[in-house]
Amino acid sequence: MNTPKGYRFSTIEANLKYSGRKDLGLIVSDLPAAAAGVFTTNKFQAAPVVMAKSMLDTRPFARAVMINAGNANACTGEQGLTNCRRTMELVADAVGLMPEEILPASTGVIGMQFNMAKWEAAAAPLAADLGKSTAEDFSRTIMTTDAFNKIVSRTVEIEGKPVTLLAVAKGAGMICPNMATMLAVFITDAAVEPAMWQKIFRAGVDESFNRVTVDGDTSTNDTVFGLANGASGVTVTEATRPAMQEAVTAVMREIAYKLVQDGEGATKVIHINVTGAQSKEDAELAARTVGHSPLVKTAMYGRDANWGRIVAALGRSGAQFDPDDVVVTMCGVELFRNGQPTDADFDTMLEPYLKEVDIVLDIELGHGDGAYTLLASDLTHKYIDINADYRS
Amino acid sequence: MNTPKGYRFSTIEANLKYSGRKDLGLIVSDLPAAAAGVFTTNKFQAAPVVMAKSMLDTRPFARAVMINAGNANACTGEQGLTNCRRTMELVADAVGLMPEEILPASTGVIGMQFNMAKWEAAAAPLAADLGKSTAEDFSRTIMTTDAFNKIVSRTVEIEGKPVTLLAVAKGAGMICPNMATMLAVFITDAAVEPAMWQKIFRAGVDESFNRVTVDGDTSTNDTVFGLANGASGVTVTEATRPAMQEAVTAVMREIAYKLVQDGEGATKVIHINVTGAQSKEDAELAARTVGHSPLVKTAMYGRDANWGRIVAALGRSGAQFDPDDVVVTMCGVELFRNGQPTDADFDTMLEPYLKEVDIVLDIELGHGDGAYTLLASDLTHKYIDINADYRS
Repeated sequence: MNTPKGYRFSTIEANLKYSGRKDLGLIVSDLPAAAAGVFTTNKFQAAPVVMAKSMLDTRPFARAVMINAGNANACTGEQGLTNCRRTMELVADAVGLMPEEILPASTGVIGMQFNMAKWEAAAAPLAADLGKSTAEDFSRTIMTTDAFNKIVSRTVEIEGKPVTLLAVAKGAGMICPNMATMLAVFITDAAVEPAMWQKIFRAGVDESFNRVTVDGDTSTNDTVFGLANGASGVTVTEATRPAMQEAVTAVMREIAYKLVQDGEGATKVIHINVTGAQSKEDAELAARTVGHSPLVKTAMYGRDANWGRIVAALGRSGAQFDPDDVVVTMCGVELFRNGQPTDADFDTMLEPYLKEVDIVLDIELGHGDGAYTLLASDLTHKYIDINADYRS
Repeated sequence: MNTPKGYRFSTIEANLKYSGRKDLGLIVSDLPAAAAGVFTTNKFQAAPVVMAKSMLDTRPFARAVMINAGNANACTGEQGLTNCRRTMELVADAVGLMPEEILPASTGVIGMQFNMAKWEAAAAPLAADLGKSTAEDFSRTIMTTDAFNKIVSRTVEIEGKPVTLLAVAKGAGMICPNMATMLAVFITDAAVEPAMWQKIFRAGVDESFNRVTVDGDTSTNDTVFGLANGASGVTVTEATRPAMQEAVTAVMREIAYKLVQDGEGATKVIHINVTGAQSKEDAELAARTVGHSPLVKTAMYGRDANWGRIVAALGRSGAQFDPDDVVVTMCGVELFRNGQPTDADFDTMLEPYLKEVDIVLDIELGHGDGAYTLLASDLTHKYIDINADYRS
């Protein structure tokens, strides 16, 4: 696993909620990095979200990202904001940065104040570990209900020189458009001017994190940070921007796929490709209605090529189309055309494909050029197990 | 169970799909009845929906309602419409009515043509049974995945004389706004002028069937029919219209409640009362987002007073409000106020209430006068059992 140059990692057991596991992580860039962030659109926003947004609004640079698991510091009022600020000060003092150089994020239980004594005790060990942990360690530290850690890295050549990109993420439940309970950090050693970096970053997020769904719910804490520190010595120009964009989007897609794959209780990744819509918005509407339908999601779990549930979801999506023009194809087999199921013996034909993790669902609406792709998980017994018994 | 005057029932085993159970039912009114219908808004509409809509558009009277279970006659193209028409002719001939006096509805598997030989064989026995079956029999005949039959009746006095109202319904999965896979027939022996009857009927549906949700999915076949045949000798006038409306809405609410109670795998009926919204539309948006949230629904199943999932759903609903003004109360206990959870030991306080079937959730948005109430089921292991294994 290649790691971008000029970043050091620290991970410790701060005992903020969990015991016997690491729950506090820090990434420090040796150089000031161009910084970008995308945050939850939920009206209820956690203290670190409010804090990080205002920091990035003020200056598009950062030196560090700090993430804790176990306590989301959400629905904690003014005290929560004060505490967030204080954790930044404590860690900044210990590692020799300014508080406003550390972008904070939190995940875990909401409505509970931080135990500040734990944070005071955590700052020194966190500083001491810096450079001793790896990106892989960091990806494990931020896990909550995740079944596996999520990390992707890629080295590409820009103007003949290597640039490395790396992303870590935690997710599982509530993955949805607009940053459901999901935290991710994307770092690169390319040098990118901040305004360009923010555009590249947002475009990548829109093509990846915003196109996955587990259960349609979103959270108070969802955050994706992006740092570009220039330690590779390679500067992205307008000429090399397309190549950089392609690499960023590819890495983000790869990690977003892992989020769906690890959707709570998920056994499938359903690739919903809608084409022929009146507009991209209509295509998205259709894709999301199918991807959020509990009946479609349970059918996929049950390995059932249930075209009826798919067309019923399309029919109520609000997308414009003529029912007779719709063609639904699953894993390459046409299920539905001319307003009726096809004659194919698709149960037999699809049986081997429906055992696989990846299910490709192509939906042609026959009404225009709008297209959208969404990755969705299935809905399973284990999802219920996890979520009917989360707090207890 | 009081039955409105002037209606006869017939129920038989037509073996359209099931064997060893009744699957075809007929209700015949001795007098021409004012007729009304509300249908699915799904773009994919079953043959009987297309047929019944066009019949009611042409003339607001009917003599009969015919419902079969096992085959929905949906996604069956022109042949499906031809078959639907033919079933009406067969039954009309056998019982001595005109085809256009029989309103058809179907429920069951979609994308499969009727076996017309079965229908030909069914017409004579269906006519022979007329008057021998009861409304209760009818309510059992139309069941599919329902755990129990659904029937409600009430006798009220209008101008000092008794008028009886009766509703039967089948539902279970895909109960949602705008008539998800749900069939219902509402009959009364009041005399109501058709235009007034259609208004009373629609207003009742809007306050009842359109305010329940199981899984947010809708179907190709959802239909509610209403007949008012006048056999009681009591005519509803402008003066007595409010009393009639109240009775109609009350009976519809009672049967809509049963639909949620019998939502596939449901153990709870969550009464979501949103108040203080900017508009009724905003209140509905908030109520539906909470009522459709898989995380809220699994929490209710898990008897978990998880205010965090409720506010997270509110926060992404799109309804307008200030997060600090929101008050969330469950079964009379305040959980959330001023942007934070309250100090109440609500887990202990709510434990006895959360064991009950009915959970009352009051959500005050503090932003206006808009209000909306939605009944929602919970999301359970059994829902997954039923829906991951429906076709096999």
